[in-house]
Amino acid sequence: MSYSPLLIRLIDALQCMPGIGRKSAQRIAFHLLERNRDGAKEMSTALAAAVSGIGHCSRCRMFTEHELCKICSASGRDGSLLCAVESPADVMAVEDATGYRGLYFVLMGHLSPLDGVGPEELGLEALEKRLADEDVKELIIATNPTVEGDATAHFLADMASRHNVPASRIAHGVPLGAELEYIDGGTLSHAFFGRRLID
Amino acid sequence: MSYSPLLIRLIDALQCMPGIGRKSAQRIAFHLLERNRDGAKEMSTALAAAVSGIGHCSRCRMFTEHELCKICSASGRDGSLLCAVESPADVMAVEDATGYRGLYFVLMGHLSPLDGVGPEELGLEALEKRLADEDVKELIIATNPTVEGDATAHFLADMASRHNVPASRIAHGVPLGAELEYIDGGTLSHAFFGRRLID
Repeated sequence: MSYSPLLIRLIDALQCMPGIGRKSAQRIAFHLLERNRDGAKEMSTALAAAVSGIGHCSRCRMFTEHELCKICSASGRDGSLLCAVESPADVMAVEDATGYRGLYFVLMGHLSPLDGVGPEELGLEALEKRLADEDVKELIIATNPTVEGDATAHFLADMASRHNVPASRIAHGVPLGAELEYIDGGTLSHAFFGRRLID
Repeated sequence: MSYSPLLIRLIDALQCMPGIGRKSAQRIAFHLLERNRDGAKEMSTALAAAVSGIGHCSRCRMFTEHELCKICSASGRDGSLLCAVESPADVMAVEDATGYRGLYFVLMGHLSPLDGVGPEELGLEALEKRLADEDVKELIIATNPTVEGDATAHFLADMASRHNVPASRIAHGVPLGAELEYIDGGTLSHAFFGRRLID
């Protein structure tokens, strides 16, 4: 036995989302069809509009409907500071948590040769061009503290030093509110060797 | 700071799926836009087609594009057996696992007064009409063994007895391959009192 063709097609299509397998897709399809058809319609329209309308900022690779994203086109940002992050969500996190007023470069991933993600996929040519052409005084590397994020950070730091741009990496250590006893060894070791004199 | 309007709309729309909150919706949106635009397009089309094309079988409430679903319109099924299940997935499970050749009634949920799901929402009028008009010899109740599923089963059994239709409920007990030691008490108690003589 199998479902009707349109339902099969929907269940198959929903599986293109990350983390959604057959059972979840089925549950989502039933929920939408039974309880929220308006939501499903809106989802269909929003997906179509996003796919056709959203591109990348030509300067920082952020998702945007325009040639330049909000931040790159904003006046009053400090063009001499450049912060490299892995994803658009990281831009939001940095914007919301810090008073950073410089510009960004969104890698849209991290170096991961096994998955076929190399320097080209991350648009590093464009970043290199910015380091060469623009008057960048510091490249702040804010990739995730994972194996791939670390490798990407090294790659970016090498690139910056070739252009005589100082590169920095955000600090890794014990997060606020945590207890030393329960922190993993790697993090604690980072925190220990990254200790700073109290002024 | 916030994302571009189309991206915000997409992230909002994706949250109409059950179990998908803001962070998951964001992750899905980024994934689709960055790595799988074809998938997103297909998802949009499949959703629109499903919403406009899929309705309920007029006889058993199963999802279908036609007036009657595959099972209700099939010849050679035994119309004197009726099996009530909570969801379309349960129909598939019973079809695949058992040799059942009767018909179904899909409740599309279970009685849950707190969520505003009463007999009307489950289409029980239509079920009652079938019990009254058709020559049903047994109503097999295959709702889930949960509090709501049990309540629904009781309600259905009462309805069947009003129409002098024998009602049965699928057995609850120790699943195959399980070890008694690790089975919860409720299940074991069910299995114990539901014991059968070995012929």
